[in-house]
Amino acid sequence: GATPLLIAGPCVLEDLDIALECARFMKEVAQKAGFNYIFKASFDKANRTSLSSYRGPGLEKGLAMLEQVKKEVGVPVISDIHEPWQAEPAAEVLDIIQIPAFLCRQTDLILAAARTGQPVNIKKGQFVSPWDMYYAVEKARGAGAQGIILTERGYTFGYRNLVVDMRAFPIMRNFGVPVVFDATHSVQLPGGAGGASGGEREFVAPLARAAVAVGVDGIFMEVHPEPKKALCDGPNSLPLEEAKGLLMILKEIYEVIRKNDILSP
Amino acid sequence: GATPLLIAGPCVLEDLDIALECARFMKEVAQKAGFNYIFKASFDKANRTSLSSYRGPGLEKGLAMLEQVKKEVGVPVISDIHEPWQAEPAAEVLDIIQIPAFLCRQTDLILAAARTGQPVNIKKGQFVSPWDMYYAVEKARGAGAQGIILTERGYTFGYRNLVVDMRAFPIMRNFGVPVVFDATHSVQLPGGAGGASGGEREFVAPLARAAVAVGVDGIFMEVHPEPKKALCDGPNSLPLEEAKGLLMILKEIYEVIRKNDILSP
Amino acid sequence: GATPLLIAGPCVLEDLDIALECARFMKEVAQKAGFNYIFKASFDKANRTSLSSYRGPGLEKGLAMLEQVKKEVGVPVISDIHEPWQAEPAAEVLDIIQIPAFLCRQTDLILAAARTGQPVNIKKGQFVSPWDMYYAVEKARGAGAQGIILTERGYTFGYRNLVVDMRAFPIMRNFGVPVVFDATHSVQLPGGAGGASGGEREFVAPLARAAVAVGVDGIFMEVHPEPKKALCDGPNSLPLEEAKGLLMILKEIYEVIRKNDILSP
Amino acid sequence: GATPLLIAGPCVLEDLDIALECARFMKEVAQKAGFNYIFKASFDKANRTSLSSYRGPGLEKGLAMLEQVKKEVGVPVISDIHEPWQAEPAAEVLDIIQIPAFLCRQTDLILAAARTGQPVNIKKGQFVSPWDMYYAVEKARGAGAQGIILTERGYTFGYRNLVVDMRAFPIMRNFGVPVVFDATHSVQLPGGAGGASGGEREFVAPLARAAVAVGVDGIFMEVHPEPKKALCDGPNSLPLEEAKGLLMILKEIYEVIRKNDILSP
Repeated sequence: GATPLLIAGPCVLEDLDIALECARFMKEVAQKAGFNYIFKASFDKANRTSLSSYRGPGLEKGLAMLEQVKKEVGVPVISDIHEPWQAEPAAEVLDIIQIPAFLCRQTDLILAAARTGQPVNIKKGQFVSPWDMYYAVEKARGAGAQGIILTERGYTFGYRNLVVDMRAFPIMRNFGVPVVFDATHSVQLPGGAGGASGGEREFVAPLARAAVAVGVDGIFMEVHPEPKKALCDGPNSLPLEEAKGLLMILKEIYEVIRKNDILSP
Repeated sequence: GATPLLIAGPCVLEDLDIALECARFMKEVAQKAGFNYIFKASFDKANRTSLSSYRGPGLEKGLAMLEQVKKEVGVPVISDIHEPWQAEPAAEVLDIIQIPAFLCRQTDLILAAARTGQPVNIKKGQFVSPWDMYYAVEKARGAGAQGIILTERGYTFGYRNLVVDMRAFPIMRNFGVPVVFDATHSVQLPGGAGGASGGEREFVAPLARAAVAVGVDGIFMEVHPEPKKALCDGPNSLPLEEAKGLLMILKEIYEVIRKNDILSP
Repeated sequence: GATPLLIAGPCVLEDLDIALECARFMKEVAQKAGFNYIFKASFDKANRTSLSSYRGPGLEKGLAMLEQVKKEVGVPVISDIHEPWQAEPAAEVLDIIQIPAFLCRQTDLILAAARTGQPVNIKKGQFVSPWDMYYAVEKARGAGAQGIILTERGYTFGYRNLVVDMRAFPIMRNFGVPVVFDATHSVQLPGGAGGASGGEREFVAPLARAAVAVGVDGIFMEVHPEPKKALCDGPNSLPLEEAKGLLMILKEIYEVIRKNDILSP
Repeated sequence: GATPLLIAGPCVLEDLDIALECARFMKEVAQKAGFNYIFKASFDKANRTSLSSYRGPGLEKGLAMLEQVKKEVGVPVISDIHEPWQAEPAAEVLDIIQIPAFLCRQTDLILAAARTGQPVNIKKGQFVSPWDMYYAVEKARGAGAQGIILTERGYTFGYRNLVVDMRAFPIMRNFGVPVVFDATHSVQLPGGAGGASGGEREFVAPLARAAVAVGVDGIFMEVHPEPKKALCDGPNSLPLEEAKGLLMILKEIYEVIRKNDILSP
């Protein structure tokens, strides 16, 4: 049986200490819960609702910080790129390159990421049906991607609201790729907090449990030592201890799923 | 810890033998899986898409069949009413009176059911937000209902499609009432099969697992010895053996949820 | 060229004076604007969000008031029924019997209305695709309805919000029946006002102009001498003078549509 | 009274002759209909559903073709960019720079376009509420844009379907910017045609009439001499003669709106 993925970290790179704290903590939690841990943080939030929001340290400094996390904590790292030229420098540090949900239809971005030879995690657009993610997979495959992951992060449901359609997991696993559930972005309320996305942290755990019970290959979650002080996505980030508690329950549900052979291809 | 409900049976009453077969089989399954079983079948499908579809034996004959099931198999029974005058005769046989989803805003129907003194199961309308089911609960409470259950069966998502928003379960459990997940109607594709509702049976099990992992007080499912021959909702009804397999997995997930105290009020 | 319909009146029958005032005013406006006027008010709001809301005078008193309006003002009247037994008494007064949107899938209600021999106006459910209203039309036709009208009143769009999909008008006119746009219910925000439906009156006029420009056979609108004092649907009802201003613009748009032969079958 | 905009042309630049034919024809039509005409075609379709679809001549050749159209036909031109570095070269030819709907949240792209000093047309994302386009406008304003236009092109409505919420026009005009309705992309069915977006051309005209009746500052439409042979968006492009007929009706509706002072700020 495969070991499930845990992709977790602060939404955006703030200072190195916070990154290291998250990485160390989550690495240990993942070990206990039986997940393969990958550290994630963005070096640039290129699509904040508002111009005045914090965007991150940028490509160069950000990659340097990610390299540090990788070395000091001994974990693989993943981050997202926004323009094709970023793929190559990013691939020198990142173990997996992520395509943001809003950009999942940008052919050149997928191709650039795929051509680096690193695995690519394509987030499902909030406006793309699960069936149509097949075409994103095809684009990455056509460019020789070494590994493709799809991540669900909620679908547009009326205004300023997302819904997670749990049917998306089996539909997309059917393409022959591992599927990850992004439990924290899925509870965002886009634009719902006046110039920023709001979020409903209380739904992170129920949705994560649901996704694991349906059958997914991994879970993504934003974590932060002090979400109230987070420079991005505070309202939906999990405090570290809460993330730990959740993971231990997910482990148990995952055991039921594995034992019953639900995830077999 | 409370024992979860299993409400199951054929969509509509066809002949007594099928009803008895379903009831006997599901009673045994429920016992093994640790669910409290209630037999459900409709005596009248009052809102079929098309005029020519089978509607059922009607109130009188239907209640007589339900009484027979109750006596012969020794299980409580639930069925749905469509007009206020049906509440009283129905209450003489039914252990729980059900309000159909399309009718969950019909004040008089809820009041009539509540006034019988029997518990009332109100299905959530495909057009009602989870928060607004509070007003349906209030109506039933105001009329002195002896017990109120809410049932989720999917929400309108574009045309001819429903989505199950798993956030609905904790939102509605917050009203202080047990919440049931209707796993088979939730996969209907309304009107999607040319004059009838289509359905996607392959999603029944994943959604049921998800709901139990989120935390619900019970599961509803339509079952049939031979879904292909069912006179109603065949495309989304579960064959008996498949229902059994599903229940045994739900039992395991439910154990995880109970053990971790997720369902406590 | 056919003359378009104007169906208008207060949401619910309050006292006779308000009904008469609305009917007289709108009759005159309709004449100026070139619409055939029909007075509408409900005798019972059977599906208010909250139990404590005003429901109306009931069937008997309500029909008496409608008869009075008919006689004193000299206009046809329309109202909605909620249970099959109401069809016959209603048909003795009403010129058109209306099926509420929530009840548009209730076969017996449509059949009972259709069998009276009076024309039937079926409101499109907030959960029914335009294509699937065909089955409602078929039910009414099968029962010998003397005339069938379909009315659009918005479709479920996320939670607590409706959207008017303007494609619905040509799709439903294709069934060979006249299609009316309900401009005031379409701007409701179901449950959005804490135990009552909110509404956005500022969108009534733009949506009504849009519907006429697309091509409809009539317009429905709730009007009230003093919407702030209305016992139902105040937030989306139009004051009489505003309704008049809107009608005069709709007349001009309708002229463009008629001149260009857009409404021909 | 302001003159409304007509932005029209083939979806993507194919060969120069087709571009010139469209530009000449639409320029004349616009003159007759009282619209200010701007030629539009993409030099690169950077987000086709499928990898194998035609993408266009690319930036350099595309801009050269657009310059030719501008010179030979004497019309301003607009096109869309996909990465920030394209803004400067594009601004040397384009009279207006367009931000694609999928990219309307990409801060750097909006800033780069705004900083060129050319007006910017930001298409509303299929996942962005009308209120939240305010933040896109603020980003462009903050970067000193010389003129900002917002374009509606439909909103995600379930899977593989878009809906035009006509309330979006007054909501966005309230930001103090002109609002254009993209009548042909709005009838797309994303992914609905097996590896390509389908489209329902029959709804272009009704939706365009509706938008003008609501009140917009301009109309966008894809046109093609032979839509069946179009290398992109054939199913929703209008043949030239059909576009002409539509424009002449829009002119009449626009007259009603202008005369009644509906578009005043």
